[in-house]
Amino acid sequence: MITLLTDFGVTDYFVAAVKGVILSINPQAQIIDITHEIPAQDIFSAAFTLGACYHNFPAGTIHVAVVDPGVGSKRRPLIIEAGGFHFVGPDNGIFSYVYSRESEINVFHILSEEYFHRPVSPTFHGRDVFGPVAARLSLGDRPDALAERIDDYVKFVIPQPEVNKKTGPIEGSIIHIDRFGNCITNFTTDDLSSGQSMIMIRMQVKNHEIKRFGTHFEQAGGKDDLFAYPGSAGYWEIAVWCGSAAQVLGVRVGDKVVVDLNR
Amino acid sequence: MITLLTDFGVTDYFVAAVKGVILSINPQAQIIDITHEIPAQDIFSAAFTLGACYHNFPAGTIHVAVVDPGVGSKRRPLIIEAGGFHFVGPDNGIFSYVYSRESEINVFHILSEEYFHRPVSPTFHGRDVFGPVAARLSLGDRPDALAERIDDYVKFVIPQPEVNKKTGPIEGSIIHIDRFGNCITNFTTDDLSSGQSMIMIRMQVKNHEIKRFGTHFEQAGGKDDLFAYPGSAGYWEIAVWCGSAAQVLGVRVGDKVVVDLNR
Amino acid sequence: MITLLTDFGVTDYFVAAVKGVILSINPQAQIIDITHEIPAQDIFSAAFTLGACYHNFPAGTIHVAVVDPGVGSKRRPLIIEAGGFHFVGPDNGIFSYVYSRESEINVFHILSEEYFHRPVSPTFHGRDVFGPVAARLSLGDRPDALAERIDDYVKFVIPQPEVNKKTGPIEGSIIHIDRFGNCITNFTTDDLSSGQSMIMIRMQVKNHEIKRFGTHFEQAGGKDDLFAYPGSAGYWEIAVWCGSAAQVLGVRVGDKVVVDLNR
Repeated sequence: MITLLTDFGVTDYFVAAVKGVILSINPQAQIIDITHEIPAQDIFSAAFTLGACYHNFPAGTIHVAVVDPGVGSKRRPLIIEAGGFHFVGPDNGIFSYVYSRESEINVFHILSEEYFHRPVSPTFHGRDVFGPVAARLSLGDRPDALAERIDDYVKFVIPQPEVNKKTGPIEGSIIHIDRFGNCITNFTTDDLSSGQSMIMIRMQVKNHEIKRFGTHFEQAGGKDDLFAYPGSAGYWEIAVWCGSAAQVLGVRVGDKVVVDLNR
Repeated sequence: MITLLTDFGVTDYFVAAVKGVILSINPQAQIIDITHEIPAQDIFSAAFTLGACYHNFPAGTIHVAVVDPGVGSKRRPLIIEAGGFHFVGPDNGIFSYVYSRESEINVFHILSEEYFHRPVSPTFHGRDVFGPVAARLSLGDRPDALAERIDDYVKFVIPQPEVNKKTGPIEGSIIHIDRFGNCITNFTTDDLSSGQSMIMIRMQVKNHEIKRFGTHFEQAGGKDDLFAYPGSAGYWEIAVWCGSAAQVLGVRVGDKVVVDLNR
Repeated sequence: MITLLTDFGVTDYFVAAVKGVILSINPQAQIIDITHEIPAQDIFSAAFTLGACYHNFPAGTIHVAVVDPGVGSKRRPLIIEAGGFHFVGPDNGIFSYVYSRESEINVFHILSEEYFHRPVSPTFHGRDVFGPVAARLSLGDRPDALAERIDDYVKFVIPQPEVNKKTGPIEGSIIHIDRFGNCITNFTTDDLSSGQSMIMIRMQVKNHEIKRFGTHFEQAGGKDDLFAYPGSAGYWEIAVWCGSAAQVLGVRVGDKVVVDLNR
């Protein structure tokens, strides 16, 4: 099983070319799209999206992630073994959530060009490098047959909230905005809860105060009411009933979220 | 075989998470997307779309439909047996076209939480409830092993035209607008035909009169000419050659369509 | 293996209906989407997109391409054998790139209606004609059992640059614009290179001069700098780093590109 996550979009031939090349190598491969609608060149969004679902797939799944502004340059093509999965893609931080969550990680720099699709286009390694390598892995090839282990892979820092349950307000940030305009913060459920009970009393974003908390959307109150809840990716999120919290708040990824805890 | 119909969009991790969970339970499942682009929370559009294609799939297909503004509340999760298919989704009317078309219908309220994906997110039952249940059904589990039969399921009234072939004009409505802007009415082919011959002489929507009728687009006449034809979903539709009938007419779902029959 | 390329979009039931019908005939069929986002009725864009990836699929793949403004009229439904593949779709030029690239081509006019999905909607041959025929081919039916060979199929002229390496500037055109706004010209790599070395010294589009050439995006220079490179579809393309070359240039498909060669 091979998943694909890219910023290729679905209007052009790009995704089909990758799939065709994979299926030409391994016609039995089962290919699942994660998404191809990552905003162009947005490695951070790709990393979050991969991090939110890679673990839902069966052990042994090969996850191919290609958001790759440096395609054709010296940035290294990688295979990663972690969490019972393989990952294939560029060494640009796209696997940062995987690195931060998995304890045993082996990262390999792909050196053998034997299995590349020829000629290798310097602008389309999805088709010519990453797809074929994933197809080889799905046939049982081992990473160390294609690649050399490295330790100096690129990993960006995933912003963590300053959590101190003994003192005053703590500060986090928006790490993702989904297609509904829901704003995913970097507060985990544990950060803001103590056992079964929530210990947050106030959440502030820009000049907006979120006072309504709950677990599901029907508790969200009236139109345009801001509403926070523990989201399905494991983080607290901010939503607006039938609307876009991102628009109501006027926020972008990276903006600050301040929380008061009740203690 | 499992189909998915949602309003999750394809930019986020949502659809992939559902698929990953299903494939973790049944790696042999063949998953087909109906669409994930139902307008957010538009149960009526979801119901129409499901109704227009569920019967094209092989007997035994499991159709998962999740447009679910009430997720996490007390609305019931359902399994339905009808027409040789299974359906899985929330009890909010999304299966209304199925209920209205199939004669033998068994509706089950999912009670057993044994197979849910843990922890169950109150905002993502597609991943944690409906996906896993569909995967269990695809492995041969029977609905009555997971769920309890009910009769008071939610069903909205599908608007029917007032058809009286003996009297004056009859009145129907727009029940769907597709991505080309074609307007699907609730007049079936039978409503407006008598054997092979069409008996409609005039169709009116707002202040627009449609005078041109036919069976395929090349008969549509010039640019901006309104054109009505028996559409592929079994209903009369209104189109504009190379344009959007919805825009030309200025209509929305629910707007009135009046027809004069020739008798 | 069956691929689908259409202008149906992914918001309606159209694509699912085609897949359902195929899988009802051959439940073992593996269906891959090329794209369903071809601009409505844009046969030229469909032809380019198919041409850019059909050859990446395994031999024996059945490519179904349906952008079909003449659906329901007398335009003929076709099966084509070429390059080790089958192609199924309308006789409107959508297979022009296939015709121009493959040397042995057999084109068949589908006459037998035995396998059509009934009743055949005059507006949805994807579901009722092309899908079922592709499904039959995937079961091993031979084209000549369903169709009659013809030679007068529709083929549009793919614009070729006027290449004369001995004289002055040569003139080509934009044949495609991708979702990033990259402009694909009809200059092949061979047209503008001599062995390993590039022989182009200047490229002009409208009143813009492209002076920067390279092989991959990181060489593209600053924001809004125009940049030309040999693209992954085998043609020279024009891009802008983190932007849309089509917008910067103000071009559309068909616009002229002039090149000076160094000789």
